[in-house]
Amino acid sequence: MNLIDGKAIAARINEETRERVLQLKRHGVTPGLAVVLVGDHPASIVYVRNKDRISQELGLYSRKVELPGTTSQADLLRLVDELNRDPQVHGILVQSPLPPQIDEPTVVRNLDPLKDVDGFHPLNVGKLAMGDPTALVPCTPRGCQRLLLESNVPISGAHVVVVGRSMLVGKPVALLLMQKGPGGDATVTVAHSRSRNLPEITRQADILIVAIGQAQFIRAEHVREGATVIDVGINRINSPSRPAGYRLVGDVAFDEVAEKAGAITPVPGGVGPMTIAMLMANTLQACRLQTGLHQPASPTNPSIIP
Amino acid sequence: MNLIDGKAIAARINEETRERVLQLKRHGVTPGLAVVLVGDHPASIVYVRNKDRISQELGLYSRKVELPGTTSQADLLRLVDELNRDPQVHGILVQSPLPPQIDEPTVVRNLDPLKDVDGFHPLNVGKLAMGDPTALVPCTPRGCQRLLLESNVPISGAHVVVVGRSMLVGKPVALLLMQKGPGGDATVTVAHSRSRNLPEITRQADILIVAIGQAQFIRAEHVREGATVIDVGINRINSPSRPAGYRLVGDVAFDEVAEKAGAITPVPGGVGPMTIAMLMANTLQACRLQTGLHQPASPTNPSIIP
Repeated sequence: MNLIDGKAIAARINEETRERVLQLKRHGVTPGLAVVLVGDHPASIVYVRNKDRISQELGLYSRKVELPGTTSQADLLRLVDELNRDPQVHGILVQSPLPPQIDEPTVVRNLDPLKDVDGFHPLNVGKLAMGDPTALVPCTPRGCQRLLLESNVPISGAHVVVVGRSMLVGKPVALLLMQKGPGGDATVTVAHSRSRNLPEITRQADILIVAIGQAQFIRAEHVREGATVIDVGINRINSPSRPAGYRLVGDVAFDEVAEKAGAITPVPGGVGPMTIAMLMANTLQACRLQTGLHQPASPTNPSIIP
Repeated sequence: MNLIDGKAIAARINEETRERVLQLKRHGVTPGLAVVLVGDHPASIVYVRNKDRISQELGLYSRKVELPGTTSQADLLRLVDELNRDPQVHGILVQSPLPPQIDEPTVVRNLDPLKDVDGFHPLNVGKLAMGDPTALVPCTPRGCQRLLLESNVPISGAHVVVVGRSMLVGKPVALLLMQKGPGGDATVTVAHSRSRNLPEITRQADILIVAIGQAQFIRAEHVREGATVIDVGINRINSPSRPAGYRLVGDVAFDEVAEKAGAITPVPGGVGPMTIAMLMANTLQACRLQTGLHQPASPTNPSIIP
């Protein structure tokens, strides 16, 4: 069994990004990312801090905007509009969740699609479905694809089964892997909570991607001998023996599935670190889209600008 | 075996549309469709004539714009811009294929997404993927879904296998049937020319939707006993005994598959008539989106405005 080390792969990608930022700076352009935090959701504070820190480590211009939890939707939309027009800012990320007085889809629709580094704007979703290389692709699905590519898991012709149909992961990763060309050409099944005979369906997967948000939901019976398993879930379960009183587990029962899988991502240290690495890569791509500065495509996937 | 009579179902839907047009007219609004033909492609002339005729039969305001094959892209974009701003026109359809001097994706991107009754604008594709009820959904996929609903074929929990991954049919029909809620909730597999073990994959389908563009490609071995088969293909094959010298066949070898299928659409007379009926329904939906006139949702599918 091959453990797919997301942390090591993400570190390698971040190194690439750092070099590409240097190249862009030589052209007089510093890619800029604005991260907006509304309120004081504890997990969000950590996420925003990490994004800000890694942006700076990689040489990006990073702007952290912190607004009180009482911010009105109109005020947030005004800020989005300012960032849309700010030439120093190439990527805008509004940290989710937002307080109840703010309608998240409205905020997303008001982002400049070229600065939508989360890839959540309907225009970017449409471009992804259409295989348009200028799409900004959501970070987690892009991270899943990149993990497969970096681990030399064959995608073309493989049967990928995605469990979960969210817009964060399930649908975009399905669209990404069924695209024509390198990094795509898979046969893709999207299964979910309403699917009948789920173990029968998931056992067909050469590549099983799980993003259903239920701790240790996928067991050995769901997995074919030798399959590659990508576990997107992050769930807390009680663990009185740990100092924190909990531990993090994925949507896959790691120990029993690892015995059958050909390759598997751990939780933590699998998909998680890739998501932030892909956010940085998306900011670079957004910068290139806005400035017209060309970047050679990846040798492994011409449709993906790494 | 149940033959799914697309012609009869389309006629019923057109009757509904005619009544709804009357209702809208009582509110002082006449839904309007503009169909643009560039050049004199023989099949396109027939399609445009049919769309114009049926629009008129159903009481819509129909505008047919015929431009010479030498029309420049700039001139076509100017016309699109005029139609975008014309309050009498709620739906715009630019007949494909366009002559080589015109870039079709550019034309589509310049349509007002609210008037894009073909559902090809990336914003509508994105909304479809996101399950947004204001999406204008491409006519053929919407017709496939409606055929299943009208034939009382259970979709929720069923395994749908789509053969073909085009933006005209394969991807949008997959996205439509995997949406949450009535008319959706299927487990969906998208297979294509690069899929391995295709017969094994298609034999799992409770509902098999074929849009691969190859005459009689799907044979009995691809189909499970009792499955519902929706054949989107329309292909000409030589038939010296016919006056025209050819006959139309689908992507499914009808005679042998009909013996195994629980239900099947014929070609012609299956999906074909639904496409134009859905175009009319889309024009009504576009009219309501633009005028704010509400239409009660369908009892069978609240997310579909029939």
